[in-house]
Amino acid sequence: MLVVMNQGVADNTIEKAIKYIQDRGFETHVSKGEVHTVIGVVGGGAQHLDRRDLELLSGVKEVIKITSSYKLVSRIFKPKDTVVKIGEEKFGGNNFGVIAGPCSVESYEQMDETAKKLSKLGVKVLRGGAFKPRTSPYAFQGLGEEGLQILRKVADKYNMAVVSEIMEIGQIPLFEKYVDCLQVGARNMQNFNLLKELSHLKKPVLLKRGLSATFEEWLMSAEYIMSGGNRQIILCERGIRTFETATRNTLDLCAIPVVQKLSHLPIITDPSHGTGLRDKVAPMAKASLAAGADGVMLEVHHKPECALCDGAQSLTPEQLKGLLKEVGAIAGVCGKKIIF
Amino acid sequence: MLVVMNQGVADNTIEKAIKYIQDRGFETHVSKGEVHTVIGVVGGGAQHLDRRDLELLSGVKEVIKITSSYKLVSRIFKPKDTVVKIGEEKFGGNNFGVIAGPCSVESYEQMDETAKKLSKLGVKVLRGGAFKPRTSPYAFQGLGEEGLQILRKVADKYNMAVVSEIMEIGQIPLFEKYVDCLQVGARNMQNFNLLKELSHLKKPVLLKRGLSATFEEWLMSAEYIMSGGNRQIILCERGIRTFETATRNTLDLCAIPVVQKLSHLPIITDPSHGTGLRDKVAPMAKASLAAGADGVMLEVHHKPECALCDGAQSLTPEQLKGLLKEVGAIAGVCGKKIIF
Amino acid sequence: MLVVMNQGVADNTIEKAIKYIQDRGFETHVSKGEVHTVIGVVGGGAQHLDRRDLELLSGVKEVIKITSSYKLVSRIFKPKDTVVKIGEEKFGGNNFGVIAGPCSVESYEQMDETAKKLSKLGVKVLRGGAFKPRTSPYAFQGLGEEGLQILRKVADKYNMAVVSEIMEIGQIPLFEKYVDCLQVGARNMQNFNLLKELSHLKKPVLLKRGLSATFEEWLMSAEYIMSGGNRQIILCERGIRTFETATRNTLDLCAIPVVQKLSHLPIITDPSHGTGLRDKVAPMAKASLAAGADGVMLEVHHKPECALCDGAQSLTPEQLKGLLKEVGAIAGVCGKKIIF
Amino acid sequence: MLVVMNQGVADNTIEKAIKYIQDRGFETHVSKGEVHTVIGVVGGGAQHLDRRDLELLSGVKEVIKITSSYKLVSRIFKPKDTVVKIGEEKFGGNNFGVIAGPCSVESYEQMDETAKKLSKLGVKVLRGGAFKPRTSPYAFQGLGEEGLQILRKVADKYNMAVVSEIMEIGQIPLFEKYVDCLQVGARNMQNFNLLKELSHLKKPVLLKRGLSATFEEWLMSAEYIMSGGNRQIILCERGIRTFETATRNTLDLCAIPVVQKLSHLPIITDPSHGTGLRDKVAPMAKASLAAGADGVMLEVHHKPECALCDGAQSLTPEQLKGLLKEVGAIAGVCGKKIIF
Repeated sequence: MLVVMNQGVADNTIEKAIKYIQDRGFETHVSKGEVHTVIGVVGGGAQHLDRRDLELLSGVKEVIKITSSYKLVSRIFKPKDTVVKIGEEKFGGNNFGVIAGPCSVESYEQMDETAKKLSKLGVKVLRGGAFKPRTSPYAFQGLGEEGLQILRKVADKYNMAVVSEIMEIGQIPLFEKYVDCLQVGARNMQNFNLLKELSHLKKPVLLKRGLSATFEEWLMSAEYIMSGGNRQIILCERGIRTFETATRNTLDLCAIPVVQKLSHLPIITDPSHGTGLRDKVAPMAKASLAAGADGVMLEVHHKPECALCDGAQSLTPEQLKGLLKEVGAIAGVCGKKIIF
Repeated sequence: MLVVMNQGVADNTIEKAIKYIQDRGFETHVSKGEVHTVIGVVGGGAQHLDRRDLELLSGVKEVIKITSSYKLVSRIFKPKDTVVKIGEEKFGGNNFGVIAGPCSVESYEQMDETAKKLSKLGVKVLRGGAFKPRTSPYAFQGLGEEGLQILRKVADKYNMAVVSEIMEIGQIPLFEKYVDCLQVGARNMQNFNLLKELSHLKKPVLLKRGLSATFEEWLMSAEYIMSGGNRQIILCERGIRTFETATRNTLDLCAIPVVQKLSHLPIITDPSHGTGLRDKVAPMAKASLAAGADGVMLEVHHKPECALCDGAQSLTPEQLKGLLKEVGAIAGVCGKKIIF
Repeated sequence: MLVVMNQGVADNTIEKAIKYIQDRGFETHVSKGEVHTVIGVVGGGAQHLDRRDLELLSGVKEVIKITSSYKLVSRIFKPKDTVVKIGEEKFGGNNFGVIAGPCSVESYEQMDETAKKLSKLGVKVLRGGAFKPRTSPYAFQGLGEEGLQILRKVADKYNMAVVSEIMEIGQIPLFEKYVDCLQVGARNMQNFNLLKELSHLKKPVLLKRGLSATFEEWLMSAEYIMSGGNRQIILCERGIRTFETATRNTLDLCAIPVVQKLSHLPIITDPSHGTGLRDKVAPMAKASLAAGADGVMLEVHHKPECALCDGAQSLTPEQLKGLLKEVGAIAGVCGKKIIF
Repeated sequence: MLVVMNQGVADNTIEKAIKYIQDRGFETHVSKGEVHTVIGVVGGGAQHLDRRDLELLSGVKEVIKITSSYKLVSRIFKPKDTVVKIGEEKFGGNNFGVIAGPCSVESYEQMDETAKKLSKLGVKVLRGGAFKPRTSPYAFQGLGEEGLQILRKVADKYNMAVVSEIMEIGQIPLFEKYVDCLQVGARNMQNFNLLKELSHLKKPVLLKRGLSATFEEWLMSAEYIMSGGNRQIILCERGIRTFETATRNTLDLCAIPVVQKLSHLPIITDPSHGTGLRDKVAPMAKASLAAGADGVMLEVHHKPECALCDGAQSLTPEQLKGLLKEVGAIAGVCGKKIIF
């Protein structure tokens, strides 16, 4: 940390601040500028010195934190891109992976119909919600374990892998049994107890960005998962909350190059939740790839107008087909491999 | 819901939209304006018709939802103020309640020292974190059950009630045993599984507003708790995330009159987390009361400079004493009862 | 407007509301739903009835505005894409136009050097600031008229067109003399007096989105310009202000398909200001095109490390060359014509 | 500025960064920590070194700016509170000033009626808009010079002072003639050309905070006005734009203690625009005072239901009377003088 003193403070005020810091077991480096004196704080295990305590010392102008709190997820720790596999599909490096499926698992027939069509298009990872985080207690909450069973059965039939969202620790055994990749939703990005438990699993985790999470916070949540030993993490930008309400969220595509510079983990986007409207999904999916994303997750429903949930942001399999063709063409330009 | 058609759409486009709605089991009321035709959608159990599906129909300009999704928490359902008690302290109606204590339980001595001083000042509700939601996996995570035991022991000694934050469903039995009021933190405001479990308890719940939660979403989360039978809920505004980073959060004091108009539940504020800086806590606590708040939660530490967590936003017992005196004087002006 | 009454209001409360509206010269259409009664308000010249006045009437739950306030800029008014020309370069329809140049005009040599290189790459529109909006009164404020003269001279030499930012009404005669397109910056997007004056010009206007402007507000500002007769407007998304500070702004690429649905005007992006960092410009420029943008504005400096302003977000001509090649390849996929 | 190098960078990378800085005429102070090496940058006239240029140097982790760009408005420059007078009313120090009046000047009768009532209540400063910044070109734009004449005439009759909003440089002579204090609206907070002109006036300026302006940017705009010699500035918090749309804006009351720590200038609030709803104005006005504000500006209309503009957020004179009584009582508690 760097402690910046006010312009023109007395020497003994500076000395008192230095003593305060040293008394807590830290070393100090002082540098006097023309205007401000800056005290560098070194050693001692930085998390026990709250920057705001220093800010309240007499004569202190501001306190600046330097060391990023995340380590394992940073590119400094591991300069090379991490490639994460869900089944056979690769995310990261020069691979662009695709995940598709309906918002919710509604019935065996629905999933079978959708998976058959997706599989024909070459999609290798099937998504579907069995436990749904719904704002209202009165809305459809998902089929639960039955939903996971359907997902597994259908995925096996078409040789696909399964991604589904986990909501709480108690569901882990179920997810270990049925799915290939556990999704952590935006609302649970800082459910730290859940993250800690996921850190002990041997399965990849898809970690969505919280509605108002900074990049630093998002990467810290990934750090929770890595700190327990699980290194298979895919980050997923799904839109942040801003003043603009014409779209459901504001898909922050600049997250892609920013996060790729800070971390070795793959980053994909979810244009379906990021925009909330079907006719905005294709433009944002293509834009994600052009911005360098490592993959995309898309809501697809064989009959969107009958979907129990989020049909309005779901593509039909036919629309997906057209989109994947365009995505394939752009991928070539951008140096990404894609199987379509 | 109201479906607003585009200017100048053909009659058969309107008829198609009406048919689409009626086919899903809803009634329609059509009203032709000078510019726009509006279709009112009535009946049928509104949650099964996604407004965005309607938005994608040909000729539709926009779809407007009317019925608020919350019922039990609304003032229409219950016009009279709800008064919630934590121990002997009342929140709501013309009562202004005070909760105080350190961010984290650190040791028996710390809690005993703090509680003794708070108790002398007349504070009747003690707060303290035993399980801490920390952004970093490497930061102090709380004493766990031992922390709850300390809280209970000290509170009993000074005849106080206890509030502490719960992090996950598995901790409920512990909280039932040791605390008088369970706090749900901002990061868990939409942890719906947790909310559902809390709805079956017989103890009051303090529900903090999420960092980027709208009033509607906040009240919906309260609705989750009420929908299972628990009617003792205190809402707590603790600052929202905005572009301004000079304060830790932006304490949205207008939440007080807005929520009081929409709901019968008591609403308090947490100026310690809302500002993040000790010298901003007193102005915001007084402002909360002047805006009509039903109480306040304050971080107090007998030695803030030694606190393991958030000392920078903690008041000393002496500072609290001065603040309570001012609060008491303002309460008189605002028609609120306070015991100080 | 639609006036939604509270659940269970008495009939005479509804009648009073209706009378209030009719007394102000409006017609009413009443529709009774299961839960809410809705009063449609028609005619009378809607701008004289403030929705908030209605909200404060007894028994009113909420008031909903329907008619968009903009008319001339809307796709309903003119369904076909507007194509705007700056010199020979076209923006809109299936044209993807490119504007490039330094943040500030610094000297004849700098502009000549830059323009020569841009011109060789095929760029036909040169940008450069002569009057600079600077947050600090102590920062470089631009060369003023001399800057405009340099721009004109250099552009003529290389057969290019000129875009530059206007700051106030008094500068209009200068801009009429020297530039081909007047840029209105984000901070002036709601400088209504300036917009009104620009509405009488015969030159195209490049209207940037304000830092916290909604799409509706942005289009209303364009409406100001069109309402006086100037129909040559290019909209430019340049990033909005959000809680995330890792990037200078959050470039909202979903603005592209959203605005293209609402309006016939061309929309381009400014990834240099939108991200603030050179290494993020190329990914965001490519993403803009993939999302359907009608063009892009890029900061280019022949020696970014010596730029007086915003060098950190400027590309070198060599970097631009690489970017334009990739942009050209993606344009083919997206059905856009580009000359590179 | 402080340049923080990446963990584990080679020594010659550090040397290159140092050389880059020194070549631009700055001195460097190097401090080696356990993890990061930090280069302090001193001297040389900081505004010519863009932090982002340094960020793009090889091996650089981040660049931190220290010196605040504002000088004259800072408390370091002038530790004592500035007291600004509009007519006889004082703002700042231990004075709490009140400004009241309608949104727009509509007619002589309206202003005379309102001013008579305000004057009886003891209000000494009359506000009213003659030139209105309206989002729509089709909305009422104000009476212009006639409005200013009415304001002056009525104010003189009741021995009041006048505040009105200026929109552009060309209006300055009119404002010099008719008003006592010139208001700069939120949309013009960064209209730097206008600010520069106002810096040469001898009349106080009321500077509203922009919709998405940080405290730093707001104070920099005040610095523009002070830098030309005008030291009579009143800052006015009027709500910022956030994701919450239930209120027109989010009134950021913590701005009061934050700005009062950074600057010697008085700060007041505008709860009418800050909330947009009449029944929220009184709670927020009282809360402003309790938070330490130096005054308040309130919209009052003798017949709000007939106002041409913003009647929904206007108080009646009777409501103002009740509010002022409560405000007076709270002022006593908060150590502020108020005449009511």
